[in-house]
Amino acid sequence: MGKLLIVGTVAFDAIETPFGKTDKILGGAATFIGLAASQFKTSSAIVSVVGDDFPGEYLDLFTKRNIDISGIDIVEGGKTFFWSGKYHNDLNSRDTLSTELNVLANFNPIVPENFRDASVVMLGNLHPNIQKEVIDQMVKRPKLIVMDTMNYWMNHSWDELVEVIKKVDVLTINDEEARQLTNEYSLVRAASEILKMGPRYVVIKKGEHGALLFHEGHIFFAPALPLEEVFDPTGAGDTFAGGFVGYLAETQNVSFNNLRNAVIHGANLASFCVEKFGTERLEELKKQELNRRLHQFRELTQFDIELQ
Amino acid sequence: MGKLLIVGTVAFDAIETPFGKTDKILGGAATFIGLAASQFKTSSAIVSVVGDDFPGEYLDLFTKRNIDISGIDIVEGGKTFFWSGKYHNDLNSRDTLSTELNVLANFNPIVPENFRDASVVMLGNLHPNIQKEVIDQMVKRPKLIVMDTMNYWMNHSWDELVEVIKKVDVLTINDEEARQLTNEYSLVRAASEILKMGPRYVVIKKGEHGALLFHEGHIFFAPALPLEEVFDPTGAGDTFAGGFVGYLAETQNVSFNNLRNAVIHGANLASFCVEKFGTERLEELKKQELNRRLHQFRELTQFDIELQ
Repeated sequence: MGKLLIVGTVAFDAIETPFGKTDKILGGAATFIGLAASQFKTSSAIVSVVGDDFPGEYLDLFTKRNIDISGIDIVEGGKTFFWSGKYHNDLNSRDTLSTELNVLANFNPIVPENFRDASVVMLGNLHPNIQKEVIDQMVKRPKLIVMDTMNYWMNHSWDELVEVIKKVDVLTINDEEARQLTNEYSLVRAASEILKMGPRYVVIKKGEHGALLFHEGHIFFAPALPLEEVFDPTGAGDTFAGGFVGYLAETQNVSFNNLRNAVIHGANLASFCVEKFGTERLEELKKQELNRRLHQFRELTQFDIELQ
Repeated sequence: MGKLLIVGTVAFDAIETPFGKTDKILGGAATFIGLAASQFKTSSAIVSVVGDDFPGEYLDLFTKRNIDISGIDIVEGGKTFFWSGKYHNDLNSRDTLSTELNVLANFNPIVPENFRDASVVMLGNLHPNIQKEVIDQMVKRPKLIVMDTMNYWMNHSWDELVEVIKKVDVLTINDEEARQLTNEYSLVRAASEILKMGPRYVVIKKGEHGALLFHEGHIFFAPALPLEEVFDPTGAGDTFAGGFVGYLAETQNVSFNNLRNAVIHGANLASFCVEKFGTERLEELKKQELNRRLHQFRELTQFDIELQ
């Protein structure tokens, strides 16, 4: 059982989809990553920051799942990071209605002592300097550092972003962002370019079209499970990442073959996340449901053509 | 070895992509279907119509591949169906620059006597009444009737379209068209609705995002092979269909399990089609290349999670 260190936002979200809208609910990249990873046998910790408006019951939610919260800084008199967005009818695109950085603006990540030797580090989407500070606090090189990012940092902190990308083993990024990062339209070419920037692995997330894992000329593809209804896509990418690193922290095997399994676990977790608002489905999710749906992934992708 | 009957357009295309443009070249749904299916051990025939402006060398191309052309009506003084289009930079969308129906306007399909007992019938995208006339000429119920269609017929010949859909075993349709046909955004729901309309199987084509096969609550997914470069997507859907029916005509097995294999073969053929303009890549394609790329499909999709 390996230690998993997660850095990312713990936040309030307000979401509107064609199916309804929420008030401020629990959100944030580290939240989804942590909840997803907690389905695996691993000891994990979240490094983040919230204001004193953040409900204790949300923190209890992490603790109950064996997620160490000593690295979540609670800023007195501060307000928690808030994002609100409205999805279009196809749920593939959304407008951000509001982003209030609040306490995140001065976030200074401190990795708890007992997680400075974590074997897997998941750097959720944040300013690249914060991601770098976390890496610098590790007392030994983790087995695997996984990094998520987004287009915002390409537009505003290019040099810092490239510096961090150099230091990680896996970059997870969505298709449009992979194109922006490399100036290549073909995802195969974009992945090749990213692999030259430092990482050994690249995961390109295509939302409802699945995810591609690239490594040294090899490609693996995890489909998104076709669902009757996608209710709320918020957090699906982070949930994917959480399933991915949770499985790797449990198995402590960072070979390409095991990363193939890890992206399937990520896709599996993500398929549940979108079924209800925010973290609701993840909170009630049973290991048995996950196991059952893995059979569907197998049925969805396996064929028996005799190869020549 | 089974007989495969193909009905569809044999045409001239003029194509413009970001990579270049062509004069009038060989095109048409039946052309791509026939060339793709000819990679399999099957005896096939094309039912179509061309003008006397259609080069004999194109017809020879079919004959050399053991495709019976006695059902291709050559209209004296007539002009061959012509389509021209220009792809946008992402190659995912295109503008039709011109469509000249010409001899297709009065097409009266006649199935050659020796193909009226074909075991597999592929109805390429055409007016549903023409598709129906072909079905009506069969002397016995084929093992499998596969039908392709497009949004144009939903807008202009709804009742006739629904009549033909009732009579077929497999409908192949793209994602947007499946949504239009059923008024369901979710492809899972759209497929369920289509299965209620008559077919036992539905294949929803998602272009570069692969294809989904639906059957009685089961789903199989064939990814599109991630390519360094897509040069010209023209005919990829028809080539997919050709690989699909060619394999089924060769194996004479229309079980769900074998249809899973068939969509992989379809995706495999399609991955070559897009590498050059029009039919160019299909014309030079070797069986050995197909076999080699099947290994890539296996590597792309297979994982070894122990299921519980």
